[in-house]
Amino acid sequence: MEYKGLIRLVNRPCIKSTGSAVGKKEMEGPLAEFFDVSSDDDKFGQKTWEQSESEMARIAFETALLKGKCSKGDIDLLFAGDLLNQCTAQSFGLLDENVPYIGIYGACSNLAEGLMLSAMCVNAGYAKLAAVSTSSHFCSAERQFRFPIEYGSQRTPTAQHTVTGAASIIVESSLHHENDYVYINEVLPGRIVDMGITDSNNMGAAMANAALDTLKRYFMQTNLKPDDFDLILTGDLGAEGMAIVKDLAIQKKMVFGENLSDCGLMVYDLKKQDMHAGGSGCGCSGVVVASHLMEQFRQKKCKDILFLGTGALMSPGSVMQKLSIPGIAHLVRLTHS
Amino acid sequence: MEYKGLIRLVNRPCIKSTGSAVGKKEMEGPLAEFFDVSSDDDKFGQKTWEQSESEMARIAFETALLKGKCSKGDIDLLFAGDLLNQCTAQSFGLLDENVPYIGIYGACSNLAEGLMLSAMCVNAGYAKLAAVSTSSHFCSAERQFRFPIEYGSQRTPTAQHTVTGAASIIVESSLHHENDYVYINEVLPGRIVDMGITDSNNMGAAMANAALDTLKRYFMQTNLKPDDFDLILTGDLGAEGMAIVKDLAIQKKMVFGENLSDCGLMVYDLKKQDMHAGGSGCGCSGVVVASHLMEQFRQKKCKDILFLGTGALMSPGSVMQKLSIPGIAHLVRLTHS
Repeated sequence: MEYKGLIRLVNRPCIKSTGSAVGKKEMEGPLAEFFDVSSDDDKFGQKTWEQSESEMARIAFETALLKGKCSKGDIDLLFAGDLLNQCTAQSFGLLDENVPYIGIYGACSNLAEGLMLSAMCVNAGYAKLAAVSTSSHFCSAERQFRFPIEYGSQRTPTAQHTVTGAASIIVESSLHHENDYVYINEVLPGRIVDMGITDSNNMGAAMANAALDTLKRYFMQTNLKPDDFDLILTGDLGAEGMAIVKDLAIQKKMVFGENLSDCGLMVYDLKKQDMHAGGSGCGCSGVVVASHLMEQFRQKKCKDILFLGTGALMSPGSVMQKLSIPGIAHLVRLTHS
Repeated sequence: MEYKGLIRLVNRPCIKSTGSAVGKKEMEGPLAEFFDVSSDDDKFGQKTWEQSESEMARIAFETALLKGKCSKGDIDLLFAGDLLNQCTAQSFGLLDENVPYIGIYGACSNLAEGLMLSAMCVNAGYAKLAAVSTSSHFCSAERQFRFPIEYGSQRTPTAQHTVTGAASIIVESSLHHENDYVYINEVLPGRIVDMGITDSNNMGAAMANAALDTLKRYFMQTNLKPDDFDLILTGDLGAEGMAIVKDLAIQKKMVFGENLSDCGLMVYDLKKQDMHAGGSGCGCSGVVVASHLMEQFRQKKCKDILFLGTGALMSPGSVMQKLSIPGIAHLVRLTHS
C-alpha cells in the first residue's frame, strides 16, 4: 500500500441508518420531505439555543438508532463534533448515551470527518457499529460567531445562513450480508489550505481552494476524473465559494460538468428564502447527506458520488486578531450497490 | 473479536519520536531537563498569546520530526486539538505543514485521544506514520476560560494551573524491525461521565469519575488489576481529583497502590511553586508523556503502564448557563520492549 493519503476501505463499510432533525426555515426549503424530525420554533422544547442544539443532536442520534433497529449499547464508537466553543452541543446532547465518545473538530467538515473515521474503524474491525453525529443551530452560531439575534444586524450578500440541523449516520460492516446499501469505499483526509481570506462573511471563498486541493489529490491518486461520478457534492461552499471553485478549476485545468453541486445551495430555496449565499454550518452537509442524498441513492438517481466536507478553521478571536481563514476538505466516496 | 470497547493493536504500533516545548514556569519545575524547547517569556517570539501557543505547537511538531529523522512529507495523518475556541492553536500552528489534518477535541484528553487514533490508523495500515499534536498556554487559557491576566484575580485552592506546553508524538509500525521501542498495545475510548459538578474551579472532581469508569471497564475486559502495571498515569486530575479518585476507588472496590500518579502532580513542584492543585491543560499530560515518561521507559524505570487522558467537556458558556461539567477519559496502554 502506497501512502499518498487515499485510504481504500476494502471491507466495504456501509451506511446502516441515518437520522436528521431540523428547524423551521429548513422545513420551508425544498428538502423538507426528507427530514425525520423538526421543531417549529427551533427550540426542541429547551430554554437556551445551546441546549436546543444539544437536544436536536440527541434526537437525530436516537432517530438513527431507531431507523437502524439498534440501541445505543450497540454503538462501539461515536465520533461527534459541532461549531460551539469546546464542542459542547454534542457533548451535552449525547451525555446520557453512555457510548465510547471521540470528540472531533473539523468545523463544517465534521460530518465528512466523522463519517471517514467511522468507516475506517468499522473497516479495520475496531467497531461493529460506529456513528458520526454533528449539528449546528442558527441562533447559537449567530450568538457565538456574529451578533446577538436581537440586534437584527444586516448580512452581506456573500454571507451564508447557518443551518439549524443535526445529523447522525451509523456505519456497519457489510461483509456478512449483501443488501441495498450505500458503501464508503474510499476516504481522503484533507490538508489545511490558506488562501489568505480574512473576510469572515465569505467562508465560501476561504474553503474553495481546500476543496480543490483535496479533489486534485484524489483524481491524481486514482486516475479518475470528475465526470466519472454522478455527483461531486461539496458541503458547504455556498454560491460564492462555488463560483470561486469553478473559476479556480479552470486555472488548474480541472473540468467539472453539471455534476458539481453544494449542500449549501440545496438546503434552502435561494430564490424564495432570504438566505444570501446559501446554507452553512455542520448541520448543513449533515442533514443534506443524511436525508436527501440517501433518498437519491435509494431511488437510484445516483450510484457513485464524491462527498467533500469543507470547513473553515477560524474562530471569532482569530478573526479579531486579523488572521486569515484557513480551510480544509475531507473526501468520502459513496457508492450504491 | 468481541466489541466491549477495548481495542487490541496486534500489529505493534510504536512511538517513533516525541517533541515538547514549554514555558518559563514549566522550566522551573522538576521535569525541566526532559523538555526539548522552551521560551523564557512564554511568547516564542509572537505578538499574541494565541499565536504564541500556535508557534509552540509548530515547534513541538518540528522537533518530533527532527528527532524521528523524518520530514513533514512523511506524516500520513496528523491528529491535532487544543483548548482554544474552534481549536485554532493547532490549526494555525500547523497551517504550513501541509499534512493530512484531522481535528480532534477531547479537552485535556487530547493527547490520549490523538495517540489512540494515531495508533489505530498505523495498526490498520492506513498510515505509515501518524502523529498527534496538542497544546495549551496559561495566558491564552486564562483569557478564554477565566479572567484577563491583568486582573490578577485570586484562584481557589482546588484550581489547577494551565500548563504552557505543546507536545507531538509520532507513531509508526514496528512490524518490520525490532528495536528499543515503546509500543501502544491497547486502547480504550472513554465514555462521557457526568458527576453533576458545576464548579469550574474544580475540574479534577469533574473528571475523577470518568477516569474510574474507563479503568473499571479496562480491568473488567482484560481481567487485569491495578498492580499488574508499573504505573497508572492520569492526566490531569490534580491534587483534588486524585484524592477523589482514591476515595471513589474504595467505594468501587478497586485497589490502587503507590503506582497511581497524575501528570498534573508531576509537572510542577507543588511545594515550591504556587500552583494550587497542580497542572492542567492539554499541554500538561502532553509534555509529561512526551518527555519525562519516555525517559522513564528508556531508563527501564517502567515497562508496562496505563495512561489515562482525562478531559472536562464544558465551555465558559455552558458554565455560565449553570450546566454541569461532564468528564471523559481515554486509555492507552504503553509497554516497553
